[in-house]
Parts: sequence; C-alpha cells; structure tokens
Amino acid sequence: MSKLEAQWIVGFVDGEGCFYVGVTKNSSFTSGFQIQPEFTVVQHERDIQVLYDLKEHFKCGIVSQNHQTRYHWRVRKLDHLNDIVIPFFEKHQLRTKRGIEFQRFRKICLKMKEGLHLTPEGFEEVCHLAKNLRVK
Amino acid sequence: MSKLEAQWIVGFVDGEGCFYVGVTKNSSFTSGFQIQPEFTVVQHERDIQVLYDLKEHFKCGIVSQNHQTRYHWRVRKLDHLNDIVIPFFEKHQLRTKRGIEFQRFRKICLKMKEGLHLTPEGFEEVCHLAKNLRVK
Repeated sequence: MSKLEAQWIVGFVDGEGCFYVGVTKNSSFTSGFQIQPEFTVVQHERDIQVLYDLKEHFKCGIVSQNHQTRYHWRVRKLDHLNDIVIPFFEKHQLRTKRGIEFQRFRKICLKMKEGLHLTPEGFEEVCHLAKNLRVK
Repeated sequence: MSKLEAQWIVGFVDGEGCFYVGVTKNSSFTSGFQIQPEFTVVQHERDIQVLYDLKEHFKCGIVSQNHQTRYHWRVRKLDHLNDIVIPFFEKHQLRTKRGIEFQRFRKICLKMKEGLHLTPEGFEEVCHLAKNLRVK
C-alpha cells in the first residue's frame, strides 16, 4: 500500500494515539523517580501493519506486543520525541482534544530536554504537568 | 478550525469509524425483519465538534447522544450511504481492516439499492453478509 500521508496520521492519532508521561519510583535516579514520556498507538494484531507503517514513517520507536491480541508502536526516547514526533504534530495540528494533551506533553518534553526536571522545583512542576495531562 | 481534509477523515475513520448492518424483527416489513445499514463515528462529548465537522463535510447524517458522555454522528439513509459515504471511501481508501469491513458493507448497500433483499434468497444473502461483516 502507498506510504502514509501526514493528514491520515493526524486523523488516526486523533482517534488512536496516546501521549502519556509516567512517573515511577526508581532508586537508580537521583530524585528517586523516573519520568518517562511516551507516545503510543495501540492496535489489534489484525492491523499490526499500520504500526509498522508508522514506525517506517517516523523512523523511530518500536512495535511490540501490548496485551494478548493488542500491539503498540511506541516512542520513548526523549530525543526522538523532541526531534521527530513533536515537530510533526507542531506542523500538522491535531483536531480533537488530543491536541491539548499533545501541547501539555510537548511542554514536559521540552522541560526535560533542558534538564529542568533535575532540580527539585522542576521535578515537582513536571510531575504536576504529567498528572494533569489528560483532558477530562 | 480549518475544514476537514479527506486523508484526515480516512485516518480518523480507520481508527474510530464503524460500518454496521443491523437485522432486527419488525412486523411492519414484509419479510418480518428490518435490515438497517449504518455508518457511525462515536466520540466522547469533549470532542463533539469533530462529529459536527464530519456532518458538515458529508452533508448528511445526524449527531446525537449515544450513551452518557458518548455522542455519535450516524448515517442511516440508504441513499446517503450509497451516494455520499460509499463513493467517498471508494475514492479514499481505508488502510486498516476497516477497509475490508467497508467493502462488505458496500456490497450490502448496493444489493439493497437494487432491492435484492426483498426476495427470500436475497434477504438470506444480505443477512449472511451482515453477520460476517466484522473482521475478526
């Protein structure tokens, strides 16, 4: 099938994409916590090809099993998020409330790029933003 | 916001659209059954605007409450399905397995347009197609 078009990706992500920032205890980090932003698209295994098409388009992320018959394409590397995923959705605007979640996600990734989350104040701020990422 | 682009619609429907043909008992029909094809997109109320954008783009269907905080845009009129929705997805191909479901849905709508479901054999055939519309 033909390559993905930018607007198809925007429409698909408006429906199926997920911007998420996990904050988990991890003693190997100075703060005692790991902050992990990730961009994920989940599909039933019958549509795994679309996940590989997305991976091919963005040239980053991995496709792997999510849960039983569900698979995901996920980008977790901060550089790939900041240099590839975020510029794409800055250029091609999401239409649903996913766009607001993207803006919050973008703010967190930029702060992390600048290392602001490594100070106690910055860490608190990023945690607060992460907790309020989802549009109710 | 700008008008919907065709490829955005395809991407969004690849994720969120549903082609469905209901077969229900209804004594006001000669066969004793009503066959009802419908094309539906469901969203949380926070994104109801996208449903109105779709209605505006296709100039058919209605937006109404689905269940609690969920709303849908739905096209049920056979003429609108055959003359507007189906030609759109013939021109702009779906990428996921939704595309296979669309082809099956299309076949049913065309048969109904020709009135084939009004004969006992045609009715049986349409029911069989409707039951096997979903890609497992």
